[in-house]
Amino acid sequence: MSEPSLDARALVDAEPVWWGWRRADEHTELPAAVRALLVDGLGFVERLSPPVDLADVRLPPSRLPEPARADLASAIGPEQVLLDRVARIRHCGGRSTTDLLALRAGDAAAAPDAVLTPAGHDEVAAVLAVCAGHRVAVVPYGGGTSVVGGLAPPHAGYEAVVALDLRRLNRLLDVDTVSLTATLEPGLSGPAAEALLAEHGLTLGHVPQSWEYATIGGFAATRSSGQASSGYGRFDAVVVGLRVATPIGGWELGRAPASAAGPDLRQLVLGSEGAFGVITAVRVRVRPVPERRRYESWRVDDFATGLAALRALAQRDLLPTVARLSDEVETAAGAASPPSAAGPPGAAGAAGATDGPDGTNQGDGVEVPAGGCQIVLGYEGTPERVERQADDVAALLGAQGGRPLGADAGWAWVRGRFHGPRLRDALLDAGMFAETLETATFWSGVDGLYAGVRGSLAKSYAAAGVPAVVMCHVSHLYPTGASLYFTVVAGHSEDRAAAWAAAKAAASDAIVAAGGTITHHHAVGTDHRPWLGAEIGDVGVTVLRAVKRALDPTGILNPGVLIP
Amino acid sequence: MSEPSLDARALVDAEPVWWGWRRADEHTELPAAVRALLVDGLGFVERLSPPVDLADVRLPPSRLPEPARADLASAIGPEQVLLDRVARIRHCGGRSTTDLLALRAGDAAAAPDAVLTPAGHDEVAAVLAVCAGHRVAVVPYGGGTSVVGGLAPPHAGYEAVVALDLRRLNRLLDVDTVSLTATLEPGLSGPAAEALLAEHGLTLGHVPQSWEYATIGGFAATRSSGQASSGYGRFDAVVVGLRVATPIGGWELGRAPASAAGPDLRQLVLGSEGAFGVITAVRVRVRPVPERRRYESWRVDDFATGLAALRALAQRDLLPTVARLSDEVETAAGAASPPSAAGPPGAAGAAGATDGPDGTNQGDGVEVPAGGCQIVLGYEGTPERVERQADDVAALLGAQGGRPLGADAGWAWVRGRFHGPRLRDALLDAGMFAETLETATFWSGVDGLYAGVRGSLAKSYAAAGVPAVVMCHVSHLYPTGASLYFTVVAGHSEDRAAAWAAAKAAASDAIVAAGGTITHHHAVGTDHRPWLGAEIGDVGVTVLRAVKRALDPTGILNPGVLIP
Repeated sequence: MSEPSLDARALVDAEPVWWGWRRADEHTELPAAVRALLVDGLGFVERLSPPVDLADVRLPPSRLPEPARADLASAIGPEQVLLDRVARIRHCGGRSTTDLLALRAGDAAAAPDAVLTPAGHDEVAAVLAVCAGHRVAVVPYGGGTSVVGGLAPPHAGYEAVVALDLRRLNRLLDVDTVSLTATLEPGLSGPAAEALLAEHGLTLGHVPQSWEYATIGGFAATRSSGQASSGYGRFDAVVVGLRVATPIGGWELGRAPASAAGPDLRQLVLGSEGAFGVITAVRVRVRPVPERRRYESWRVDDFATGLAALRALAQRDLLPTVARLSDEVETAAGAASPPSAAGPPGAAGAAGATDGPDGTNQGDGVEVPAGGCQIVLGYEGTPERVERQADDVAALLGAQGGRPLGADAGWAWVRGRFHGPRLRDALLDAGMFAETLETATFWSGVDGLYAGVRGSLAKSYAAAGVPAVVMCHVSHLYPTGASLYFTVVAGHSEDRAAAWAAAKAAASDAIVAAGGTITHHHAVGTDHRPWLGAEIGDVGVTVLRAVKRALDPTGILNPGVLIP
Repeated sequence: MSEPSLDARALVDAEPVWWGWRRADEHTELPAAVRALLVDGLGFVERLSPPVDLADVRLPPSRLPEPARADLASAIGPEQVLLDRVARIRHCGGRSTTDLLALRAGDAAAAPDAVLTPAGHDEVAAVLAVCAGHRVAVVPYGGGTSVVGGLAPPHAGYEAVVALDLRRLNRLLDVDTVSLTATLEPGLSGPAAEALLAEHGLTLGHVPQSWEYATIGGFAATRSSGQASSGYGRFDAVVVGLRVATPIGGWELGRAPASAAGPDLRQLVLGSEGAFGVITAVRVRVRPVPERRRYESWRVDDFATGLAALRALAQRDLLPTVARLSDEVETAAGAASPPSAAGPPGAAGAAGATDGPDGTNQGDGVEVPAGGCQIVLGYEGTPERVERQADDVAALLGAQGGRPLGADAGWAWVRGRFHGPRLRDALLDAGMFAETLETATFWSGVDGLYAGVRGSLAKSYAAAGVPAVVMCHVSHLYPTGASLYFTVVAGHSEDRAAAWAAAKAAASDAIVAAGGTITHHHAVGTDHRPWLGAEIGDVGVTVLRAVKRALDPTGILNPGVLIP
């Protein structure tokens, strides 16, 4: 039995600092190379902007009425109804940059009035019954990593708002080694789920950038897609069964991998963002821990060439486990600032992979040529499959104008795969700004979508007089289309949140105009809600509202998200 | 550019006889080998039972009120509102054996009061508006091949019932050769769609047994799965976009292959069986017409060995384009009665496949060993891919106890792939009976599901004193599970429909008890509706009803199907 390919056990209980992404035991300073690039090279203004002290955070008093508190205490135990300052601040909002700017400034006005930690499906159901009776809004809470305002209900119209923290629903309920499925509770974090599966020689392989903290329930509720989606599948594609607690009763779905017994209602729960019910168990497809992992990097002359190459891989059923392409700007930025320079300790390298990076010189020492666009490819599986697939891909990429750069830059990407949000912490400390957004469309529309979104972001920052860099990569590939993931890094400005809000609105308009989806894997939350109607139409909005009314007649479930 | 792998052009306008499955220019007699097996070998009673003459069919007068007729005539043209006897009888019910027994006996009580043939999305929308205003039930009608009572609305409670025949929505609206998608109108039959795509060197590859008549809209509305589902995907897996006419307005879905913009509402339309709206366009993934097709047969000692072998293929990502396993009874029946003996002319062999069966001796001359279980495998794609995949599969099957039988029996299956329903015509002519049902579950439950359903069918016929043969095959495979497809052939009995109804109810109860889905690819219709609640729960039923109420407030759309 192989070791898991990620250092899951060390991260089972990982928790970020209350104001950012890094863990308390980590230090993330702005690397000198990044400062040189941004300040010296691009003229970004830097201004030291540390977060306030926890003691200085402004937190409104809890509004939870005593009768509601008493009923909740009798439903799940008084010690599971948390009203203390730290618990409430820790559950305030998600991890968008806008959320972090508010927290860092000491604004916890959006904090829940209480944090509940029920222990299982029945207790979750009991919480919903109590909250429906007292008109208390319930925000299902997993890893708290939403970047779309998914954890920010309006307090108006409710007696109180509670965060329903699912951390105690953290069991591996079942492993079916014949069907190769596992049933997981929603509060398991990415590392916790992998650590439990690894005891059976299995892996889920779902590794989004939020993997360290995000949970199984969150992956399902937001239609998450991991960095290895080409090999292991989007999360919605690996879910075969669900259990949900709704205000009108329990709901179990999934008697077969596929069915013609009416609409696939699993696909109505996936992406429901806590607005239809609380997911209390998820049955997923799992695979044997890969015997071999191979990562490597390629270079192509330009983004268009890279897109054509990835499209060819996708349409000829040749996609590796991981396949990503950075545009010219992201490639240049990556070369100037190797991510491994500040990579998190827990994610540094693979434990036990037979051809892992151990013993080779990665990170700072990786030499990459200037210019062009970087492609990172990863292969996981049996040794024969990995090598043969890599040969096939190499033949195709070579024919499409790609140049192999070898393993070092590939493994450097692996080591730095969770680095982005830590760099954001450092940029915010320096008074600068970083945020991301993503979309997807069919291949014939990718060029137009890229140009439209990129242009709108750049134009918005230029209009505000704030220097900014807009980068993009493609990391989720399908035979019929692909995702685009944009990163914006900007210098200091008077109101960083307002500058981003304007740019994000312009980008969202551009996405709609170009025919893309408003989000490929970050969910709708409150941030994308104004644009959802353009995507699913008036009829779609009517359907979502009807389902919401049927499942949550008192409207207590995560109000404000998803449904226009 | 290769020729399509199916003889699509010859079948573009294929239409079955009004009382059965064969075309008017075909003759299907009970093959001598089948008669010998059933009558001489198993003691089945045979009794000549031809269908009544068309002139003797009992058809109630049309109830369509004149004001409704006039409004419909002005919406789509008077010549598109068909009230004539033949049109109404031809749209009476679907093609379940129960439907055919009624038709053959001259009972057309379930016929619609009129048949409408609108020309496009806007005319469909206009029809819905008129029918909502006049309280006229609308049954969307494609190929008329439902085997689950999907075309049998109750007349009570409505002023009239009309069949909305989509045959004039028969265009290929768009081919996107960059994204490899095509947008098809719903009235295109399987052959018509393939013939249009073949002009672009493309194929959909969706070939259920009903392919000759069934339509794109029907494939979508029923979550159809084709014989090559392992290679080309279930229909719901290849749909990337949909246009729907609903009573509350038009609806367009699908801006990307995948999205996190809330629940995947495409998956709510797929499988909606005409109860939520009328699908007026479907955008699907397409592929290049395969350069090579390779079919072959294998034999394993028993069904359990075959299941284990197919499971290994599915879980190691080695599934060929077609993979099917017959149990011992179906294998023996197939050996006794080679399907190619009575295969339809239009489906005989491949046109232009580079290594097709041309020139080799298939059909009657195929020699197969007695005993064990047959596996049929088909590979379609580039020559290198086909040969390499076949080598990989051969290595695995050999290790799992399989013995290769070569290409002849594989190509014999290809030639006979549309034969089953024609044999049913012949059996009904002989006063005997044949019908099928199907289900699916996860691999760990397949043995129990097989035993439960098989046993319940056999026991029900035994209790009725009717000799019957129960056969099964597996033809849709997933990493986590598989489908089971049962065929029942029975001798003559006083009330063949009643005997089947009892057996089908027992089998449906057994499916629920064993944890399977009530249907893997035939849809719910009216036949499976009593068992749907056990599968999706009270909460699921509440959701379906809420969506129905929202989209179809006057309840005119295909009433009686799907929703308990």
